[in-house]
Amino acid sequence: MKNTADSVYLDFNATAPTSVEVQKFVEKFIKISGSWGNPSSIHWASRVPKLEIREAHKNIAKVLGCAPLEVIFTSGGSESNASILRSVFDAVFLEKSMGEKCEFITSCVEHPSVLKSFKYFESLGAKVHYISVNRQGQLDLEQYRKLLSNRTALVSIMWANNETGVIHPIKQLCALAHQAGALFHTDAVQTLGKFEINLHDSQVDFASFSGHKFYALKGIGVLYSRKGSRFHPLILGGGQERHRRGGTENVLGLASFAEMSKQRSKITEQAQRLEILRDHFEARVLAEIPSVTVTAKESLRLANTSSLVLSGVDGETLLMALDLRGFAVSTGAACSSGNPEPSPVLLSMGLTRQEAQNSLRVSLGWCTSLEEIEKFIDVLKEVVLRLRSFGDMQEIEV
Amino acid sequence: MKNTADSVYLDFNATAPTSVEVQKFVEKFIKISGSWGNPSSIHWASRVPKLEIREAHKNIAKVLGCAPLEVIFTSGGSESNASILRSVFDAVFLEKSMGEKCEFITSCVEHPSVLKSFKYFESLGAKVHYISVNRQGQLDLEQYRKLLSNRTALVSIMWANNETGVIHPIKQLCALAHQAGALFHTDAVQTLGKFEINLHDSQVDFASFSGHKFYALKGIGVLYSRKGSRFHPLILGGGQERHRRGGTENVLGLASFAEMSKQRSKITEQAQRLEILRDHFEARVLAEIPSVTVTAKESLRLANTSSLVLSGVDGETLLMALDLRGFAVSTGAACSSGNPEPSPVLLSMGLTRQEAQNSLRVSLGWCTSLEEIEKFIDVLKEVVLRLRSFGDMQEIEV
Repeated sequence: MKNTADSVYLDFNATAPTSVEVQKFVEKFIKISGSWGNPSSIHWASRVPKLEIREAHKNIAKVLGCAPLEVIFTSGGSESNASILRSVFDAVFLEKSMGEKCEFITSCVEHPSVLKSFKYFESLGAKVHYISVNRQGQLDLEQYRKLLSNRTALVSIMWANNETGVIHPIKQLCALAHQAGALFHTDAVQTLGKFEINLHDSQVDFASFSGHKFYALKGIGVLYSRKGSRFHPLILGGGQERHRRGGTENVLGLASFAEMSKQRSKITEQAQRLEILRDHFEARVLAEIPSVTVTAKESLRLANTSSLVLSGVDGETLLMALDLRGFAVSTGAACSSGNPEPSPVLLSMGLTRQEAQNSLRVSLGWCTSLEEIEKFIDVLKEVVLRLRSFGDMQEIEV
Repeated sequence: MKNTADSVYLDFNATAPTSVEVQKFVEKFIKISGSWGNPSSIHWASRVPKLEIREAHKNIAKVLGCAPLEVIFTSGGSESNASILRSVFDAVFLEKSMGEKCEFITSCVEHPSVLKSFKYFESLGAKVHYISVNRQGQLDLEQYRKLLSNRTALVSIMWANNETGVIHPIKQLCALAHQAGALFHTDAVQTLGKFEINLHDSQVDFASFSGHKFYALKGIGVLYSRKGSRFHPLILGGGQERHRRGGTENVLGLASFAEMSKQRSKITEQAQRLEILRDHFEARVLAEIPSVTVTAKESLRLANTSSLVLSGVDGETLLMALDLRGFAVSTGAACSSGNPEPSPVLLSMGLTRQEAQNSLRVSLGWCTSLEEIEKFIDVLKEVVLRLRSFGDMQEIEV
């Protein structure tokens, strides 16, 4: 996962490079005799994959703080989100098995995979409440308390925001939901590898994770389903994942995720290291570049994430200028990149369209070094000043 | 994809070993700088994956006989099936956008991922018709014609059966469905690599494919959606796959599928070679082992598939005895392996429970050799005779 000599990757919230350990594992695994077998077969070619699946459940349960059978492999975070949202929607509106419970609560800063599902449910007549956030990206807990009722079927709130890094008080939110008799799901895709999590301690019923945000392969994810929690599978088929997710298992993918999970002991140490780096980055930027603010600086944030507003500089132009110099950063979520609209997350925090358009997201990872950060700040400074001077010239020309 | 010295893999309908070409590709790809990038990003780390995705659409379109943008990557055949079935169900029962069209037609020999979806729809009040098959595994076309009406929303019939290899007349079935104004989907997971297919020629609206049945990685599949056909995505998210399938793309998986698709010129030649091998296998078995029948022998079948009934021999015991000798075969679909119930596919063809329990599926692949087949027949003969003699002894003892 090393960057090439003249390129620096600072977009770890979009995806993480496959780690060296995962790379080596993939190279080895693909050559193991019978590793390609169908785990559901009952002959020699199923032995290696069957064992891998069992071990993967165990290793991933350890990093998530849950039991192996509470881990269900999916194709990624979006599928995990779709599975649980759709399941509760079906229970309410099709199976009619949830009594008077028929409303949903989510936040206005969720990932598109959650928001789009809810928009679809709304188009079908469902009642969905969106908790708002303040300028610091923090949820309006008063509003949340008021909206929770015995009509609430499911609450789905992300653990940490992909754009600002703001961490939501999931344990508290979940406890309140449970008091109201509602199920609680969290899109926890941005948490893994960024701080130590313990799902049992959090008490959540369901949680979504993605392998590729944690230095494993793309195309693999996890839906955590707390023991005793029931849901209707999104993908039916054979008896895979104890009848909770049909389809032949992505053995290489899940084994790569498990391989990375073995490095769980590094999470806290990396988080501490990255927080120092990130704070150093923000301190230097604030000191050396005029008219910059750090979004949600007062909030509890992921240690690796920094969301900046650089006034007078178009985020996308800045991103491209930095790309030409070898730096990979983002203006918002990668999933909506190329979308000329300013980030809905930043807008719902109360940033103006102009501020949202002047935003840049920098997200650090386990292989980010101090040298890279220093180099990045130097170039950022230079590019921002240059772009601003163009802006001034344009204003003069106009 | 070579078998080890003392093991012979004859279960290619369950899964195919990753080909040597795919293995080499994976080893190479995973080391390419930035190949792990998020394709939705707009910086250097997205360039390789973006290009891979574009090329994969093109290469897979060529092997499927369709246009690149008609190919939608999913996590596998089960997801592809779930996507289209669920989409039409939603259109009928939730969106109410299909007018009087509200019925489904399928066959009683479909894969569990199709049948279980329909069973779920039935539990929610949907009308699903199941076309029956005769002893040769052929669909009752008269029944099909009678059931089709202007109330039919969707027909979903598999192209080739995984257990018997029987190939259904998809073009004809699809034309009849279209005459009735119904959409047509085919689960074509068993076809790829087994005969040359041309989706445009077949006229189907939707088709499902799986990478791992075609010597590529597990966790990758395709949903073909004919130009102009609309469906509601199962997994929402970013704008991936032109808003038809959310979630960060499984780039390694889809690129492995595309890599294998480059070998499309070998399909016909392999099918011809395997048909000779399969016919030789069946001829020798019928000549040398008493009381054996070949299921659906009179039907048009996949060239690689042979489903046998060996009377007096329990299929699962036989499978395990053969496994001990290094041969990997199947009693039915891998997805229901370990399930003690006899194959529903064979039962719906009119085989007795006893016949179904005496069944063995042998499926050949691109790396199967004449030597392996000869060796297999010798061992099969020996094991069958031995098991039958135990059976006789047990009968005497009782």
